[in-house]
Amino acid sequence: MRVANLGVGLIGGSVGLAARARLDAHVRGYDPDGRTLDEAERLGAIDARADDVAAAVRDAEAVFVAAPVGRLEEAVRAALDAAPRDCVVTDVGSTKRAIVAAVHDERFVGGHPLAGAETAGVEHARENLFEDATWYLTPAPGTSGILYERLHRALTRLGAQPVAIEPELHDRVMATVSHLPHVLANVLAAQASNVIGSEERVPASGPSLRDAIRVAGANSAIWTDIYLSNREALVATIDDTVAALRAVAETLTAGERDAVTGWNDAARRDRDRLLGAGMGDGPLSELRVSVPNRPGVIAEIALALGRAGVNIVDMALSPSPDYRRGVITMWVRGEEQAGRAAGLIAELDFDVARI
Amino acid sequence: MRVANLGVGLIGGSVGLAARARLDAHVRGYDPDGRTLDEAERLGAIDARADDVAAAVRDAEAVFVAAPVGRLEEAVRAALDAAPRDCVVTDVGSTKRAIVAAVHDERFVGGHPLAGAETAGVEHARENLFEDATWYLTPAPGTSGILYERLHRALTRLGAQPVAIEPELHDRVMATVSHLPHVLANVLAAQASNVIGSEERVPASGPSLRDAIRVAGANSAIWTDIYLSNREALVATIDDTVAALRAVAETLTAGERDAVTGWNDAARRDRDRLLGAGMGDGPLSELRVSVPNRPGVIAEIALALGRAGVNIVDMALSPSPDYRRGVITMWVRGEEQAGRAAGLIAELDFDVARI
Repeated sequence: MRVANLGVGLIGGSVGLAARARLDAHVRGYDPDGRTLDEAERLGAIDARADDVAAAVRDAEAVFVAAPVGRLEEAVRAALDAAPRDCVVTDVGSTKRAIVAAVHDERFVGGHPLAGAETAGVEHARENLFEDATWYLTPAPGTSGILYERLHRALTRLGAQPVAIEPELHDRVMATVSHLPHVLANVLAAQASNVIGSEERVPASGPSLRDAIRVAGANSAIWTDIYLSNREALVATIDDTVAALRAVAETLTAGERDAVTGWNDAARRDRDRLLGAGMGDGPLSELRVSVPNRPGVIAEIALALGRAGVNIVDMALSPSPDYRRGVITMWVRGEEQAGRAAGLIAELDFDVARI
Repeated sequence: MRVANLGVGLIGGSVGLAARARLDAHVRGYDPDGRTLDEAERLGAIDARADDVAAAVRDAEAVFVAAPVGRLEEAVRAALDAAPRDCVVTDVGSTKRAIVAAVHDERFVGGHPLAGAETAGVEHARENLFEDATWYLTPAPGTSGILYERLHRALTRLGAQPVAIEPELHDRVMATVSHLPHVLANVLAAQASNVIGSEERVPASGPSLRDAIRVAGANSAIWTDIYLSNREALVATIDDTVAALRAVAETLTAGERDAVTGWNDAARRDRDRLLGAGMGDGPLSELRVSVPNRPGVIAEIALALGRAGVNIVDMALSPSPDYRRGVITMWVRGEEQAGRAAGLIAELDFDVARI
């Protein structure tokens, strides 16, 4: 297969590595940044470099457009203008409604792999980036079935799990599970900074605040585009949040104890369902361990669990205000592992509670 | 010193252990739950048990009231009714305006130690629970200076850092840095569950959502009281959040790119300031490590850092949708430790990025 990658950063570079290794593809790369292209070539993410879009896609069978969301439409159009008639063109942008609405071509399929959000840059590209990752595809009514099938098959061979979804639903889901958490983190960071700012006596933030603001102010070079590209779905989602917050405030003002408890218990069920989604071996169990905050203490616990074959699915260390002690919250899968984990940790003489 | 503890769970039990060890105090305990009292006695958290409040406080010099927020006023009044005239009475409730407004007695000082929120139950009590923890005190104009000073000195000897604060400000700060994050987590969990609920194709939640809903639906037995007790400050704080969210939605709708970037960059500064608060050795540095999600991998990394004396201040593991891979986000203190940590992790052949 002949593949063209327009943009060879983390995603495009990883597509190149995977396509060469798993599809036995010949990969031609183009990137407006010459140094990125150099690095992609050096890392083996492309077989050949192209000086422009047209040269890259000339004889391609599949084109991956990995341009910033703000320049996506322009890049997709350029690819379609120059690509052969039987070539599938897809993108990897994180919002889908706008690009699908703008581009009508039977060769185009919008796409969005849920991978790689944590870093950027071709130097972090890897051949297994998409292993078992959901890769959303947004075929339009006019999309060629043959080309869609070719793309689907290629993605599967790259290791991904392609999933077709309506572009509007995709954007609403992403607005809720990804963009809204960033908005709330930003808003909360500003509020907390404001109340603490006037008050030297106020201590460092607590664990719930730390978790809640962890993603605040994510890289603007990426996120301004994401926010704006998905603004329609995001604004609707924010409206829902405002309505929900008003309802909470009313319940609190009315002092309706049962209603507060009911609301909170429902949130617990929602949380457990969300955190447990996609599991095979039963729901996650939560453990909390109180530890001195010194080098090696996490190693000691994690090592003991690792030796015993207990896999820590997720963990978070919340330090005390002075960072001398901390609480490790850990999630492991299923009752049996949780029981074993608690026993092992207690044997190490740490205080452990199952939540 | 003669101490009486009304309520001998995690906080009361820890006060007992610390007071016996560090103040050489004689501690008398009362708890409406006889089994809790048994356990406190067995663990050495009290010297003697009392059958009722009056018997517990009869000859006390300091009384710690560790009752649930919903029964706090009643318990404080009972203590004051029976305590000697030169005895200081304090509480450990997590909101302060209501109790301070309700109780006018020169012997009473409202209090709130920022410790122990992670677990409950006397079996987790420990003598060093308050080591270096902020312990808020809300003295009223009518509070006896002598008794306040006695309490302050005792808390310092328990290891805590007592800090005087106005009850209204205390509640506003707690509403913002502790209660609001829980409200937002609850609201977000409900919204995400709703959008995902209708959609089997939607994958497991992403890392930003996981962090954001981690505290959703916290124990209603504790949190319904906290929400209701602090509802005045909390509703005002929610109103601020609603106003901030509307402003964000307007900026997004207007498509003001610079305004979106400015808002996001400001949130970054707020976040860094909040996460870095209270540090001595420079700001926190963030590292992201891509790892296979198998037992022992965290051990391997943490052990290497531990051996090298690099202290992980905070960490979070975000699994990929299928839980086979994950990204460890770690914070260490200062540039030097961050550089060393990145080098050590790279030597282990993991992909590491400094953010």
